[in-house]
Amino acid sequence: MEKKWSEEEFVQYLAKQFPVIGDDAAVIPDGDQAWLVTTDALVEGIHFLREEIPPADLGYKAVAVNVSDIAAMGGEPKYAFLTLAIPNNVERLWIRELVEGIREACNKWAIQLSGGDTVGSKRDLFINIAMIGAAPLAHVKYRSQAKPGDIVCVTGFLGDSAAGLKALAEHRQEKIAAAPLIRAHFRPEPHLKQGRWLGAQKGVHALMDLSDGLGLDLARMLKMSHCGAVIETTQLPLSPALQKICQEQHWDPLELAISGGEDYCLLCSISKEEYPKLSNSKLQAEFGCPLFPIGAMIESPLKLIYQREGQPIHINCRSYNHFEL
Amino acid sequence: MEKKWSEEEFVQYLAKQFPVIGDDAAVIPDGDQAWLVTTDALVEGIHFLREEIPPADLGYKAVAVNVSDIAAMGGEPKYAFLTLAIPNNVERLWIRELVEGIREACNKWAIQLSGGDTVGSKRDLFINIAMIGAAPLAHVKYRSQAKPGDIVCVTGFLGDSAAGLKALAEHRQEKIAAAPLIRAHFRPEPHLKQGRWLGAQKGVHALMDLSDGLGLDLARMLKMSHCGAVIETTQLPLSPALQKICQEQHWDPLELAISGGEDYCLLCSISKEEYPKLSNSKLQAEFGCPLFPIGAMIESPLKLIYQREGQPIHINCRSYNHFEL
Repeated sequence: MEKKWSEEEFVQYLAKQFPVIGDDAAVIPDGDQAWLVTTDALVEGIHFLREEIPPADLGYKAVAVNVSDIAAMGGEPKYAFLTLAIPNNVERLWIRELVEGIREACNKWAIQLSGGDTVGSKRDLFINIAMIGAAPLAHVKYRSQAKPGDIVCVTGFLGDSAAGLKALAEHRQEKIAAAPLIRAHFRPEPHLKQGRWLGAQKGVHALMDLSDGLGLDLARMLKMSHCGAVIETTQLPLSPALQKICQEQHWDPLELAISGGEDYCLLCSISKEEYPKLSNSKLQAEFGCPLFPIGAMIESPLKLIYQREGQPIHINCRSYNHFEL
Repeated sequence: MEKKWSEEEFVQYLAKQFPVIGDDAAVIPDGDQAWLVTTDALVEGIHFLREEIPPADLGYKAVAVNVSDIAAMGGEPKYAFLTLAIPNNVERLWIRELVEGIREACNKWAIQLSGGDTVGSKRDLFINIAMIGAAPLAHVKYRSQAKPGDIVCVTGFLGDSAAGLKALAEHRQEKIAAAPLIRAHFRPEPHLKQGRWLGAQKGVHALMDLSDGLGLDLARMLKMSHCGAVIETTQLPLSPALQKICQEQHWDPLELAISGGEDYCLLCSISKEEYPKLSNSKLQAEFGCPLFPIGAMIESPLKLIYQREGQPIHINCRSYNHFEL
């Protein structure tokens, strides 16, 4: 039997077949504006366990992960199209709550749910949302524009969602300390306002969202931008809740922050000259969370170096791969 | 345990929650133009059997069914977004052929595959395509505009795909007679040119594609248009291949034509005054297939009457329901 593909290999194969694929959303120029189109699926047994995630949270999350893709391009979401493939054994109440969660999220971000396809499924439940957003064409940011010398920043805490998932997997959800982490896993809050603000800043060279973990997502940005990066691990922003549970449970916070995935905050590469201005900007005051500088872009293509207080360290970065789960 | 929903009930529930849903594609006005957005999924074990359909045909079909939705609105397809959820046990060659089929279809209709999401799946393979098309806003047709007195027409043969599926299910695919029917099932040819032409005609009041069978799809048009219809069953267009296999195998051609599904030709409701002009038009000459008049719209809301040479007959119309398969 033939070797199977990793997700990364398959995405690369597809990208070679259809050269346009690469950013968080496709860009369709329309005069001075751009339409942004993205599609994201949640598959039972891969992205969620039906008996574990409350259906309203699942619906909310299905919308939120697409909103995050639009945020990563500097846009705002407008229309959503829902595909549900539902096995026979799902109860009405469950579907009602799922739809409630979808509706709540659409209302929150002023998205019009404008169509979709509802079909049966033999065994697994699938949710796919295609989302159309819009941005001024000049504000659209790409993964490929990072430059050596840029400051690498993230817009939020890393690892919370992964710690929530780990707590669930180890049946520690009864611990009060895990509640905000589980919430981060079930109900991610995309950094939509931050994305629009960053999109409007000329000093922001490259922008993407963190869905598969800093390690893998940053590697993607490096590949598209033909440069490398040095990350200072002591600067990775860790939430108080994550620090506490890692201390209690002897978990490695760096592993969660780098390899965890599903953070749904933004990763950006900012001009060194413009950085001081942007970091003292309204981001902290208006969005309640600063830009966290975590390293710098370097010349060496694809080189990703992790440091602790300036000394290179080895990070056992298992890249996130749906196919391996 | 609670009662489960039929697909029709669930679509109605969703339509009540999100009032915009109802036509083959969503319409987003943009000046004099309209963007048309649709999404259609094919789920393993529901819409196809992996060991049965050649992967290139499956890829082609996944694109074609979305093109049919755009055709049904009078538009032309522009961009496609592919979501694939693939179980571990699928081989590379299979995926390569699937992608080849997708590419062939996108090339055929000048569609740009512009993005997507590739994820794992525990057991079932799932293909979703979201498609964006465009049309002059004035040419966009809806299901809701049929008027009593209109002539009901279809643009192609009915029942071929259903007969192909039946031949496959009964392992008659070795019979030469079934080959064009199986091809109709595996590689539907959406009536894109016909849709654009019909969209441009003022005399065409309502338009939709036939995906779930004439019986169910016409009922949907009647519901949205608040009228009824009389169908003359002797006028339903049946292909020579369908007639032949029905004779040989003692199958009921009317059942296949009315309840079969996946015809992917167009159903339209045309002004009685304009009909003679349209039926003598270039449709036959240019598209190789005439408009087939099959009945008339009547006042009585939702009433769907089948006749044989003017006499009402009972049709055992099992409506297509993915959940019941």
